[in-house]
Amino acid sequence: MTARLKSLIESRRFERLITLLILVNAVTLGLETVPEAMASFGDLLGIADRLLLLAFTAELAARFVVYRTRFFHDPWRVFDLLVVGIAWLPATGNLSVLRALRILRVFRMAGMIPSLRRVVGGLVAALPGMGSIMLLLVLVFYVFSVMATKLFGQSFPDWFGSIPDSAYTLFQVMTLESWSMGIVRPVMEVYPVAWAFFIPFILCTTFTVLNLFIGIIVSAMQSEHDASATAEREALHSDNAAIMQELKALRAELAALRDAAKR
Amino acid sequence: MTARLKSLIESRRFERLITLLILVNAVTLGLETVPEAMASFGDLLGIADRLLLLAFTAELAARFVVYRTRFFHDPWRVFDLLVVGIAWLPATGNLSVLRALRILRVFRMAGMIPSLRRVVGGLVAALPGMGSIMLLLVLVFYVFSVMATKLFGQSFPDWFGSIPDSAYTLFQVMTLESWSMGIVRPVMEVYPVAWAFFIPFILCTTFTVLNLFIGIIVSAMQSEHDASATAEREALHSDNAAIMQELKALRAELAALRDAAKR
Amino acid sequence: MTARLKSLIESRRFERLITLLILVNAVTLGLETVPEAMASFGDLLGIADRLLLLAFTAELAARFVVYRTRFFHDPWRVFDLLVVGIAWLPATGNLSVLRALRILRVFRMAGMIPSLRRVVGGLVAALPGMGSIMLLLVLVFYVFSVMATKLFGQSFPDWFGSIPDSAYTLFQVMTLESWSMGIVRPVMEVYPVAWAFFIPFILCTTFTVLNLFIGIIVSAMQSEHDASATAEREALHSDNAAIMQELKALRAELAALRDAAKR
Amino acid sequence: MTARLKSLIESRRFERLITLLILVNAVTLGLETVPEAMASFGDLLGIADRLLLLAFTAELAARFVVYRTRFFHDPWRVFDLLVVGIAWLPATGNLSVLRALRILRVFRMAGMIPSLRRVVGGLVAALPGMGSIMLLLVLVFYVFSVMATKLFGQSFPDWFGSIPDSAYTLFQVMTLESWSMGIVRPVMEVYPVAWAFFIPFILCTTFTVLNLFIGIIVSAMQSEHDASATAEREALHSDNAAIMQELKALRAELAALRDAAKR
Repeated sequence: MTARLKSLIESRRFERLITLLILVNAVTLGLETVPEAMASFGDLLGIADRLLLLAFTAELAARFVVYRTRFFHDPWRVFDLLVVGIAWLPATGNLSVLRALRILRVFRMAGMIPSLRRVVGGLVAALPGMGSIMLLLVLVFYVFSVMATKLFGQSFPDWFGSIPDSAYTLFQVMTLESWSMGIVRPVMEVYPVAWAFFIPFILCTTFTVLNLFIGIIVSAMQSEHDASATAEREALHSDNAAIMQELKALRAELAALRDAAKR
Repeated sequence: MTARLKSLIESRRFERLITLLILVNAVTLGLETVPEAMASFGDLLGIADRLLLLAFTAELAARFVVYRTRFFHDPWRVFDLLVVGIAWLPATGNLSVLRALRILRVFRMAGMIPSLRRVVGGLVAALPGMGSIMLLLVLVFYVFSVMATKLFGQSFPDWFGSIPDSAYTLFQVMTLESWSMGIVRPVMEVYPVAWAFFIPFILCTTFTVLNLFIGIIVSAMQSEHDASATAEREALHSDNAAIMQELKALRAELAALRDAAKR
Repeated sequence: MTARLKSLIESRRFERLITLLILVNAVTLGLETVPEAMASFGDLLGIADRLLLLAFTAELAARFVVYRTRFFHDPWRVFDLLVVGIAWLPATGNLSVLRALRILRVFRMAGMIPSLRRVVGGLVAALPGMGSIMLLLVLVFYVFSVMATKLFGQSFPDWFGSIPDSAYTLFQVMTLESWSMGIVRPVMEVYPVAWAFFIPFILCTTFTVLNLFIGIIVSAMQSEHDASATAEREALHSDNAAIMQELKALRAELAALRDAAKR
Repeated sequence: MTARLKSLIESRRFERLITLLILVNAVTLGLETVPEAMASFGDLLGIADRLLLLAFTAELAARFVVYRTRFFHDPWRVFDLLVVGIAWLPATGNLSVLRALRILRVFRMAGMIPSLRRVVGGLVAALPGMGSIMLLLVLVFYVFSVMATKLFGQSFPDWFGSIPDSAYTLFQVMTLESWSMGIVRPVMEVYPVAWAFFIPFILCTTFTVLNLFIGIIVSAMQSEHDASATAEREALHSDNAAIMQELKALRAELAALRDAAKR
């Protein structure tokens, strides 16, 4: 029974069906944002969404029955569980937010199509190498946020009223969006030396983020290069091995000749 | 007859003539935007444009007569056909748009000058490698657009009123243009937690676009590197081949010596 | 006595304790920005900060006793001394600024956690290679600031009133923040040819900064590549050395054979 | 006489003197922008500037006497001549502009200090490789400027009134400065499909500029790599040459042995 279920859910036809259902759901969820569509066949969209949710739940249940605890080893499955599970939560109160999150299901497509899966895998694989530089950025943001709150908080409560406010404003400054005309020039009208806070911040964070990117480029290149260098080295190595073998044969022949001469 | 036509349209003199006509057309189309020029010799410019259009049509007709269906195998020719064809469409109604598109003819120059042709070829060749990452970006934009429309559509109909509106606004946010002062801060006045939607979006898309660029850099570098590495490997390989040959000669000589010793 | 102190301050447990104290201080300094926290237990935070300052001072004193003048050879120690020393300055007058600088102590963490230490070390190590290009940027900024002050200073005293004002505005233009809508378009209303000043400035500085980045990428890559290339070359070299040894052995054998033939 | 002049102007002491004079001039020209400095010793600054101009003119005259026509082969000398020559032009009418250009003399420093000279040389050397991609950008700008003028010129004369106006606005759009909130959203209120013009423009130019940068990175890397690869290859080549020599010696010895055996 489980074996038949396993061969079913691992068949290509089943995968294509699920991908199709996700696509259909992407369209129905998109149509829900069109007032005209909601007016003419809103009930139908609601029913379709319910049915698709049931289908996805059944799919995950089948996968769980087959893989049991191994189900949780594949991060894509955990993601599936989360985005399908969200739709079953009682959507009262902050209803609109939970309903809006249903569209996240469409990201399941990235786990279904092999080329997308590879790209997402590559992006995720680049994250751990960024760990320590991200930690440094967090440290820099925390220190500068505390300073900004203390220095400018009283005069500019909207921008620097609390640590989270300051962190958001500093993130905006880091992306260089309206940093001068929008933030620093108004601040400098009250604190004329404010540039001595913001320009070092911009230089530091830009330089750090740049080095983050350089690190990714260099390691991507390095792994590409290593693969080709290994192939190259092996080719030359096998050349050398052939030469070595020839030399050994030569030596054996010479030894034979010597023996013959002795006799 | 066709053979003479072929040698004509493949002659360098003919290519130079067409390039010159395109340049002249670029100037006349430019002058059409200068009111003073239109006032003094607007009729002349109109006539020149008609004549140049006839010349280009004749050129393409000649090429079609010579190459027949092969005409459509060269993407540059298809582009030529499109931009010349546009000018023959009846320009009524949305007249100004079609008249404005006539200037696209000047892009034909990129297909005429070899160095430009190479650059454009290189740019186009980089596109297929970006396929899956572009697909991922489309997916991300669709999901976030649907969410933004559901979450912020009612309060900000200009920015997030429909999926296309949201996609445009999110594209603006991705380019970091006025993302905070122009969009997110006003949104946060109504939905204070809106940053939890936009900052992940900025981080995701920036990181993805960055990886798109890194991919192009790495593959450009790799192909450059492969060419030079191949040359290098071949040089070392021929060194090794020479050593091997010398070894074989040595062995042959040794065998001869052994034969001589036997006798 | 000093030996025991040395083994104490070099123990991992001591390092962890200091890291923990820095973390605690980060939290207390953060809480000082929250009005509610200050109202309920502001005195406690003040006392904690005093005690932590004493602890850090004692730590640095211990390190100084152990390492003496070598204390100043480690740049991290000099940094520690500075950020701890700031808190002992009499905080009158510009009090708020000095109090705000206390949070800089949290950066000591970057010197405590090995992975952060490595990242910061890498960032600092990239600086000297940027020396001459930075000098060039300073030169460009000085020349363009003097010109901007002379050309636009009278009409736009807020932006170009003095050399430092101009340098700040040009830095903003270099980061492309509101360069056109905010600065150049208003300037062009008075001086219509102002674009001939700003567009070359943007192109020059952007291109120079870009080359700064390229330099860092190339040198980072080069050092990575050199390491792997050295390993590769050594592998091939040892191959060749083995071949050479075999050849020498062959020659020795041949010489022996010749000697035998002579006798 | 000329020989003594030559040894004088090529001496390091003379170069240092000129560098010092340029530095002094940088300071005096900077001081001219400070109203207080002009009020107290403006006459002195004027005299100093005159004297320094005479000194630079004498220097260039000396160089011309020594090098004659070769003077014009060094691009730095031509630059010197231009920036010194500007100060001798009759400064009537557009006086302020010419006076402001005097500060360009300070750029002569970049030709005096070897490390700066190298950096500037590197930047200039990267330009020719960008030739065809720059030509493509010029073509794209011309075509899009003509189109923008025709399409949006009447409704937005300030931004798209003429080809140069459109080119400036499109340059602003390319740098992403206020492209949406400042330009495209207002345009879309009149022409709702304007995004179909601007978004392709942004994608095209950003992608082209990106490829410009990638080209520079790849060629910088390639030249670095080639240098190290050549060294590597030569090392392996000399290894192989040594092996070959050993083989030849072996063969000679074998031939001698054979001769001995024959006799």
